Amino acid sequence: MTQELTRLQRQIGFLVEMDKAKSVFRQSYLTDGSRKENDAEHMWHLALCVLVLGEYAAEPVDLVRVLKMVLIHDIVEIDAGDTYIYDDVGRATQAEREGRAADRLYGLLPADQEAELREIWEEFEARATPESRFAAAVDRLQPVLLNLATEGRAWREHRMGADRVLAVNSKMEAGAPDLWDYVRQLLDDAVARGWLDEKTS
Amino acid sequence: MTQELTRLQRQIGFLVEMDKAKSVFRQSYLTDGSRKENDAEHMWHLALCVLVLGEYAAEPVDLVRVLKMVLIHDIVEIDAGDTYIYDDVGRATQAEREGRAADRLYGLLPADQEAELREIWEEFEARATPESRFAAAVDRLQPVLLNLATEGRAWREHRMGADRVLAVNSKMEAGAPDLWDYVRQLLDDAVARGWLDEKTS
Repeated sequence: MTQELTRLQRQIGFLVEMDKAKSVFRQSYLTDGSRKENDAEHMWHLALCVLVLGEYAAEPVDLVRVLKMVLIHDIVEIDAGDTYIYDDVGRATQAEREGRAADRLYGLLPADQEAELREIWEEFEARATPESRFAAAVDRLQPVLLNLATEGRAWREHRMGADRVLAVNSKMEAGAPDLWDYVRQLLDDAVARGWLDEKTS
Repeated sequence: MTQELTRLQRQIGFLVEMDKAKSVFRQSYLTDGSRKENDAEHMWHLALCVLVLGEYAAEPVDLVRVLKMVLIHDIVEIDAGDTYIYDDVGRATQAEREGRAADRLYGLLPADQEAELREIWEEFEARATPESRFAAAVDRLQPVLLNLATEGRAWREHRMGADRVLAVNSKMEAGAPDLWDYVRQLLDDAVARGWLDEKTS
């Protein structure tokens, strides 16, 4: 006979499972170059970006909703792994892998919370609301800041030139145009310093 | 001639400095036991606890304020280091060390944001509002969950018995009484399994 989990047991079970995001590594290096960043750290850093840079959102946003979005946006990678933003092959199967991960991971929660958080994650993925466009903008900004702090290390390792970096990150413009202007200046400067090639080789 | 930083440059400077929280290590182990947790991961994990467990707050709380609180509550440790909750010697100088850290770190921000975030951090430290008591409760809960997942590893390394663990964590009761009841059951169970001694040696 299996015993039914209580609501609190399901919530705690989900929270304990979330610990695994601390072991999913991304391509960006920490600013001191000592190692790559993991998903838990990345989601925390984005939440801070939202707190500090909210005034640059293209349209008025519901701050709690943006915070929820960035705090959960990469948890599917616990099962699906990190797909590098410049990896076109990996990105072809990404939606399907992440959909299965969302079924399992959000499914650990009580049904009402599963529905709420899954909807917020799907909103993030669809980029059709001011909140999701702003969340997506800071999700592009933060890795650029880490890359610049390490003189373009992840870009150089992946042989990315300014052309591709600009193309991928130009999606920032819709969510936070002023931040995008600033990032373009930073990228010009990175090319001038030799941290980033003009063209992808 | 030094050039005045723009508002955005100050904000970005603060956010880049925050990266260092990823290199401040705590005493808790990740659930897989592979290494200790760092402050950035801990703050993210607490924010998730707030999202999922908000219904257990002792009094109605402003969710954004609690989220801001847990997202920044340990950033002073970038300068002041982590003080283990069972370290009475370190705790004697903690307030003074953390005050200086707050001056420097929040001082990186534009004045209005420095004032806002510093006030939220001081509210957290004072535990005088429903928001700060609930934030403090999840700040006690999360390390207990990590410790239980590793069969009491950090407690055993520091020779903590159930008497001290209960005394330190009983502050949870004021912010989230139902979560405290649940944690007490988990701790009884940990003693029964031999993961935690009854008395501190």
